[in-house]
Amino acid sequence: MKTISLGLIGFGTIGTGVVKLLQESIELIRKRLGANIILKKIADLDITTPRQVTVENSLITIDANDILDDHEISIVIELIGGYEPARSFILEAIRRKKHVVTANKALLATYGNEIFKAAEENGIDIGFEASVGGIIPIIKTLKESLVANRIKSIFGIINGTSNYILSKMTDEGKSFESVLKEAQKLGFAEADPTFDIEGVDTAHKLAIILSLAYGKKVKLEDIHREGITGISQRDIEFARELGYRIKLLAIATQREDYIEARIHPTMIPLNHLLANVNGNFNAFHVVGDAAGSVFLYGQGAGMMPTASAVVGDIVDISRNVLMGISGRVPARSIREYVINDIELMSFNDIVTNYYFRFAALDRPGVLSRIAGILGENNISIAAVIQKGRQKAGTVPIVMTTHKSKENDVQKAIREIDRMEIIHGKTVVIRIEDEKL
Amino acid sequence: MKTISLGLIGFGTIGTGVVKLLQESIELIRKRLGANIILKKIADLDITTPRQVTVENSLITIDANDILDDHEISIVIELIGGYEPARSFILEAIRRKKHVVTANKALLATYGNEIFKAAEENGIDIGFEASVGGIIPIIKTLKESLVANRIKSIFGIINGTSNYILSKMTDEGKSFESVLKEAQKLGFAEADPTFDIEGVDTAHKLAIILSLAYGKKVKLEDIHREGITGISQRDIEFARELGYRIKLLAIATQREDYIEARIHPTMIPLNHLLANVNGNFNAFHVVGDAAGSVFLYGQGAGMMPTASAVVGDIVDISRNVLMGISGRVPARSIREYVINDIELMSFNDIVTNYYFRFAALDRPGVLSRIAGILGENNISIAAVIQKGRQKAGTVPIVMTTHKSKENDVQKAIREIDRMEIIHGKTVVIRIEDEKL
Repeated sequence: MKTISLGLIGFGTIGTGVVKLLQESIELIRKRLGANIILKKIADLDITTPRQVTVENSLITIDANDILDDHEISIVIELIGGYEPARSFILEAIRRKKHVVTANKALLATYGNEIFKAAEENGIDIGFEASVGGIIPIIKTLKESLVANRIKSIFGIINGTSNYILSKMTDEGKSFESVLKEAQKLGFAEADPTFDIEGVDTAHKLAIILSLAYGKKVKLEDIHREGITGISQRDIEFARELGYRIKLLAIATQREDYIEARIHPTMIPLNHLLANVNGNFNAFHVVGDAAGSVFLYGQGAGMMPTASAVVGDIVDISRNVLMGISGRVPARSIREYVINDIELMSFNDIVTNYYFRFAALDRPGVLSRIAGILGENNISIAAVIQKGRQKAGTVPIVMTTHKSKENDVQKAIREIDRMEIIHGKTVVIRIEDEKL
Repeated sequence: MKTISLGLIGFGTIGTGVVKLLQESIELIRKRLGANIILKKIADLDITTPRQVTVENSLITIDANDILDDHEISIVIELIGGYEPARSFILEAIRRKKHVVTANKALLATYGNEIFKAAEENGIDIGFEASVGGIIPIIKTLKESLVANRIKSIFGIINGTSNYILSKMTDEGKSFESVLKEAQKLGFAEADPTFDIEGVDTAHKLAIILSLAYGKKVKLEDIHREGITGISQRDIEFARELGYRIKLLAIATQREDYIEARIHPTMIPLNHLLANVNGNFNAFHVVGDAAGSVFLYGQGAGMMPTASAVVGDIVDISRNVLMGISGRVPARSIREYVINDIELMSFNDIVTNYYFRFAALDRPGVLSRIAGILGENNISIAAVIQKGRQKAGTVPIVMTTHKSKENDVQKAIREIDRMEIIHGKTVVIRIEDEKL
């Protein structure tokens, strides 16, 4: 029976999970692959902190070159994350004809063309299923199962931290700040949570998904991106009253001439499957022209689920190694390794439904003045909620709209926010119902 | 650019979809595969009925041998269904070194060992993603993405007709009979619906899934199977009151020494994703030891979704043909093509929660007598609903239980149904909540 040797760079949480899973599933993999997979070396700068797994000391090194230099190692697993030295290690592994498995979304979203081009030139495979959606087989599904489909739209909940926070706020009525603190304590959120709660991590993943769905590269800065820090308990409650749940959605839609890509908190109907994705789970709702709706759900992060996706890629590449082939499935779905930039639809041109919460002084004629400005800007109102009376201070007035253009909405809201009867900035949350 | 030639046997609904999709996605496939796929021949006994797609007359034949004899054709698509002549055509295609794509669950569930052994001996690949769950990539996910996982359980809604009927009964309050008639008119149910509503089709699919998850063969007659004909509006309403929805579930669970496999109407919690799978959609909830919960959802049938899965398999095999390889992924997840029979857990030994609806005469002491018999049989009651009073005739008494053993339940219900105060047969529906 043949043996395939691996080298692991990065012995953190996911790296530990990969080591553990390889140990636990060695027999299973042997039966399914028909070969042995052995982990020959593990490189990490920190070799003293105890891990949740036992490995022989002789396997461990602080020098990643020990892996890159090892001629027996045919697959390198990069799990250190970030741009450098991950990028250099991967490029060097490729140059030395070693296949690569990585979960590094930031790197692939930014340096994808460079890495995939190098891989193609060297006849090397790159597995990156774990980079988006953890255990969810979204990458394999887009590249293989839906190969004959033009992708009409993708709606994704792809940041576990944000989804955990929004779910807790919704189900337990807690504030953003208190849930964030709780998430940090549980290890579901980083000490600096900016990447997660501001949608940066989501943008990296959406960029990768776009490259698979449309065979084009997106500039990260072109994706309109709003995080969840502006979501208050008040809006969550109004959403519920209107039959919606608020989720941070990554949205990609094929329009006639453009691709629309955006990330923002979104109200979605309570009975949609995506509305029932809670805690730190991730999910994708993909619509293909032939397939129709496909919905995929699972743990988007965490030690063992992510390790499971990494080992899935290791086995996938091992099957190629055993057959003596590479490049069987193109890295980003089309047979071009340097893919072109995509011109996204301008965010101002998107058309969707909206939720507004105005903080208005409780005076006669307020509603008609707001409605008047909306009407002048081609925004037609679908529903209004105005409750309670306030002797002093403001009352919330909530409105939802029929399909409106983002540009018109921005213009109307600027105008409304300038009115003396409106206090503070109007809350704007987009609603998706028809497309789901 | 290379060309791969296909032959299609069976020009019915799905066959028509495959022809249509190949025509529509020819450019897309060329970009993704790096080769041309051409449909060279179509065989069907009926060559006069007009189809929803235009093909050159010269492509069409009534003799499947025209495909089997054609040396240029490297992939045969079998879409006639049933045992014969599908089995003979597939075996002959394999003997002539042609790869096979099929959606034929009945055939694979029954003659899988024969077909996969022949394929292995001839170095032939068989694609059968479309045989279970239509467009849902359940087969690829089990064989590839979850390759390092021991599968702890699979819960599936895998018969679109049954799910359509139950959904309509639940959402519109209609009777089984009237919804069945409607489904037949819409083409969602066959003129003879037995295979769908009695769980036979579900059993075929579960047998295939079991072979992938556990690398073992199950005898179809060993799977406990109950259909949906016994489900009444009354039980649907009580289920709703208790916080459940009734679905026809295929269940596979790894127990310590045995695999548990069963098909029956099941009450599942309203907030579970599976409870929100409606109409003729299918879904799988798979739990892997490393991956945790994975949920996959999509159209389980229908012309274009099924065609999309078939063409996915065609491209998958074409990638192998272009590389000059076969057998890259073993047909049924392990590297053995004749797999052993599995001994399923006896249905009498299963342990789950239960719903009972007794039709009892409204007399003092009825409840205590029923409860007494349940208690004597180690069945502990979780909830009771008894409503209304009836001067004459019976009242429904509904009970749910804590975990109980099937054998104890059968014994208790037999005893209860013999009581003179009980009229008619008690309705027993299993409840799954903890495992979901």
